[in-house]
Amino acid sequence: MESFVPSQTIYEATLAILAQRNVSIRSIAEITKHLQDPYIPNLTIEMCEESIQHVLSKREVQNAILTGAELDMLAEKKLLSEPIQSIIESDESLYGVDEILALSILNIYGSIGYTNYGYIDKIKYGVLAELNNHSSKHVHTFMDDLVGAVAAAAASRLAHRHRTQLEEAASLANPPTP
Amino acid sequence: MESFVPSQTIYEATLAILAQRNVSIRSIAEITKHLQDPYIPNLTIEMCEESIQHVLSKREVQNAILTGAELDMLAEKKLLSEPIQSIIESDESLYGVDEILALSILNIYGSIGYTNYGYIDKIKYGVLAELNNHSSKHVHTFMDDLVGAVAAAAASRLAHRHRTQLEEAASLANPPTP
Amino acid sequence: MESFVPSQTIYEATLAILAQRNVSIRSIAEITKHLQDPYIPNLTIEMCEESIQHVLSKREVQNAILTGAELDMLAEKKLLSEPIQSIIESDESLYGVDEILALSILNIYGSIGYTNYGYIDKIKYGVLAELNNHSSKHVHTFMDDLVGAVAAAAASRLAHRHRTQLEEAASLANPPTP
Amino acid sequence: MESFVPSQTIYEATLAILAQRNVSIRSIAEITKHLQDPYIPNLTIEMCEESIQHVLSKREVQNAILTGAELDMLAEKKLLSEPIQSIIESDESLYGVDEILALSILNIYGSIGYTNYGYIDKIKYGVLAELNNHSSKHVHTFMDDLVGAVAAAAASRLAHRHRTQLEEAASLANPPTP
Repeated sequence: MESFVPSQTIYEATLAILAQRNVSIRSIAEITKHLQDPYIPNLTIEMCEESIQHVLSKREVQNAILTGAELDMLAEKKLLSEPIQSIIESDESLYGVDEILALSILNIYGSIGYTNYGYIDKIKYGVLAELNNHSSKHVHTFMDDLVGAVAAAAASRLAHRHRTQLEEAASLANPPTP
Repeated sequence: MESFVPSQTIYEATLAILAQRNVSIRSIAEITKHLQDPYIPNLTIEMCEESIQHVLSKREVQNAILTGAELDMLAEKKLLSEPIQSIIESDESLYGVDEILALSILNIYGSIGYTNYGYIDKIKYGVLAELNNHSSKHVHTFMDDLVGAVAAAAASRLAHRHRTQLEEAASLANPPTP
Repeated sequence: MESFVPSQTIYEATLAILAQRNVSIRSIAEITKHLQDPYIPNLTIEMCEESIQHVLSKREVQNAILTGAELDMLAEKKLLSEPIQSIIESDESLYGVDEILALSILNIYGSIGYTNYGYIDKIKYGVLAELNNHSSKHVHTFMDDLVGAVAAAAASRLAHRHRTQLEEAASLANPPTP
Repeated sequence: MESFVPSQTIYEATLAILAQRNVSIRSIAEITKHLQDPYIPNLTIEMCEESIQHVLSKREVQNAILTGAELDMLAEKKLLSEPIQSIIESDESLYGVDEILALSILNIYGSIGYTNYGYIDKIKYGVLAELNNHSSKHVHTFMDDLVGAVAAAAASRLAHRHRTQLEEAASLANPPTP
């Protein structure tokens, strides 16, 4: 039988790696709130945090974060071989594997998150600005894209759930005649 | 406020279009069973059908099926303009929008389904052989890829759930010491 | 032997459909120029137009444009069946097939274009604002995403070629010693 | 100005890593030939090798191969941190980042390659069987998917070019009347 790492271990490792890289759930939730505020009345930061917890519970999301953060940290310690060491360390503009891993996170919640991801990645909202500060000693080539994708995926999830609530409210206001 | 079609209407329309195009849930489930039989002991056709019902409840999956089936039916009635009419009607080998819609279904359940999708699409398993019978008067350029993707997505979902069950069983057999 | 529509016919149909939908190559080039101006000194609108012509010569791009524009036009004439008619006509926020077709255009030039696409789609730059004017009698649910993707793909192509030119210039300034 | 690794260096590193991991261009070409033999009369192994050389000249393809092979080699030397070390080393069935990198290669040549990739990955054709021999001391979790994707992308490229040749031949046989 195939041996495997328990799911709970992988989930906890994902939370640990985010903390280790100084990315709080709150800071990701602030991006999600910025994205969805115009569309969901009375959206709270707690609702955004809860949505992010759901996104982080998905195995595909964990795989992407663990893999990307590992490459960031290895590049930081100069433990990769060349030329991939220089490419990742310098956040080379023609290197797109970080965007590819980000997309694998977005896809779990469908294509409606593509636009939000591109937008916040471009304007470097909130914690994304810190992660993109290339003068720091840290390498966050993958982490900034992963965080942006988690925030956008959580926004997509909120959009789907908000629709469900609108429909339920409409149904209560106008019950179908028997 | 944006008006919108109720989710339930979209879900029911998806089931109706599959029935109208002569694709039964059972026939999709048979593909899923063929894919997962080697990996899940005692897998039943009912378990596969249930997994397919879950896949079909996702909005992204409904969007892909409704859009693809509409294009198939319009091509069948020769209601598209040229050259897209000829391209879709003849299932042109360099036309890849059908595979793109299929991928949007697979992505909801992650990348582990890509291989299964490609495999059954190539060997034309079960109902896929009928859908690919180009001598019929029907156009199924999109439907065969959509059905293959739904079957492969349901297989991915079963793989994830089987893992959860194995972990629960292992946990019961070896409870963590307090 | 499989019969097929000649490539030249498909290419010309793609240009014709853009013109018919009031999208000029120049207006797409203006988006591309806005995206690449900060990175490429002396970038001209003509260079952007040439890049867009290259993007439009790819079969995958033509497939996406012809399919998306066809659905827009059918929705405009109310010729689709329900519920897909209402979904496309109202540019439903949970419908993501337009973004999926856009991604298939971007992918031809790699993942570095995802961010640019999301950004301009969000800020509705230039012609995208006109295409998004939902008070017009036209349906551009697909066209705005397709145009944004073509513009972003052309920007990716320019980024790759600019790098090649920088490398050639560096090589001339510092010829390798024999 | 951004410093960068010269393109030629990245290309040569890609060829070197394939050789180092015992994957010859010829062995990839044999997969491509198997895939396209039914569709292209008189297809030679040299034509397949030439197509693979073109695929390997693309930056996105190089990025995927260098990144995936690096992770394979680090896992082989047990230099990754847990749990990603165990996940990659054991080629965990729920880990899909390898398929995601494979897809980024396929996408450069469009969606028509998805099916071919899934098929050969499933049947483990040729060199893919060796790479999947989990009893060896080598880790090829990424390499087998990357090789399959390069082979399928080269097949897509041959399909596009074969069409061009058919059209040119048809044009010579039936010249347009002036």
